Amino acid sequence: MKYCTNCGSPTETRIPDGDNRPRQVCTRCHTVHYVNPRIVTGAVCVWEDRILLCRRAIEPRHGKWTLPAGFMETGETIAEGALRETGEEAGARTDGNAELFAVIDVPHAEQVHVFYRAQLATPELAPGEESLDARLFAEADIPWDQIAFSTVEATLRWFLADRRAGRFIMHTGRITPPATRTTGPSPAPATHYAGDLADEGGQPAASAARPG
Amino acid sequence: MKYCTNCGSPTETRIPDGDNRPRQVCTRCHTVHYVNPRIVTGAVCVWEDRILLCRRAIEPRHGKWTLPAGFMETGETIAEGALRETGEEAGARTDGNAELFAVIDVPHAEQVHVFYRAQLATPELAPGEESLDARLFAEADIPWDQIAFSTVEATLRWFLADRRAGRFIMHTGRITPPATRTTGPSPAPATHYAGDLADEGGQPAASAARPG
Repeated sequence: MKYCTNCGSPTETRIPDGDNRPRQVCTRCHTVHYVNPRIVTGAVCVWEDRILLCRRAIEPRHGKWTLPAGFMETGETIAEGALRETGEEAGARTDGNAELFAVIDVPHAEQVHVFYRAQLATPELAPGEESLDARLFAEADIPWDQIAFSTVEATLRWFLADRRAGRFIMHTGRITPPATRTTGPSPAPATHYAGDLADEGGQPAASAARPG
Repeated sequence: MKYCTNCGSPTETRIPDGDNRPRQVCTRCHTVHYVNPRIVTGAVCVWEDRILLCRRAIEPRHGKWTLPAGFMETGETIAEGALRETGEEAGARTDGNAELFAVIDVPHAEQVHVFYRAQLATPELAPGEESLDARLFAEADIPWDQIAFSTVEATLRWFLADRRAGRFIMHTGRITPPATRTTGPSPAPATHYAGDLADEGGQPAASAARPG
């Protein structure tokens, strides 16, 4: 941030009175501009034994497969956001229910990814502008080497393990920063825009499944 | 938002290409400025059978009691934020562990409140600048008519019910907008600043406790 949203004057980086960390503060009207992490919300939607995945028509990770997900918008609940994204990206309709399933911190991308479980009302799909394709995958057909984001891969693996175990529990985890990687490609910088997952550029920590 | 953070020029409200809702867009550099809900993170911290509450030294709800909580900051996990707030507001130290306990949507305040369970490492407390007091309460002594926020009250009631039942589960819920109230005072407008709960000005919906 270079300019104040309130008066258009330049901002400077300093610790406001009564605060304990640097913020962007307006040099004229002294408005303090806070930056907070954002929520990405998505859903594991099933039709019979198959799981809905969308193939990304946009960057980052163009052409890769993902669960329908994107930035939570103002005025909605996290679950409403997950089902909205499901509609926008896959043209899919659920029965309206969504069960909280996974909460994954992605601190280096300044995000929290939240995934719900939902049932599709019909198997009819209609990929939206942000999707090249939307398809229902049986477990054996999931394109593991083409999954867009590590939070999506973690959530899919938790879902499949729970389904095999015959019970679903809540999962939490975090994505470790790219700096801790010892192999693999350099991560792209985190991007920030609405309606889509940012590139979290990391890898999941040991999964921390916990019973409710 | 009246001015662009990138170039300081005036913004206008319009729907960007490829989007489906109005955003603030810069009239000169065309940067789109997204607004997303923010996470408030807090903790139910216990020492033996007692629960830590802080008495607010700041508005909104000056003088009321709350669980230690505040806006999640960038670069931390939600749990780390909850324990940071516990340190800042109560001078309390935990054993470092935090179990996800409640996720409550507050859509009209553009917030999600997330609460964890934690154990204090010692009963020593040292109220911070934002607290008039910090104290450990036995269940019978909780000042129910002096609780600052409806999400805090809901979380406390879930916690006590679970403790009586001998097992803790994950809880989700939402705060209904003030417009749906039929009695009670007019809510204050939602405020937005870091390090503290905003005034959510609503009341909890029927609690949606669900087993993990």
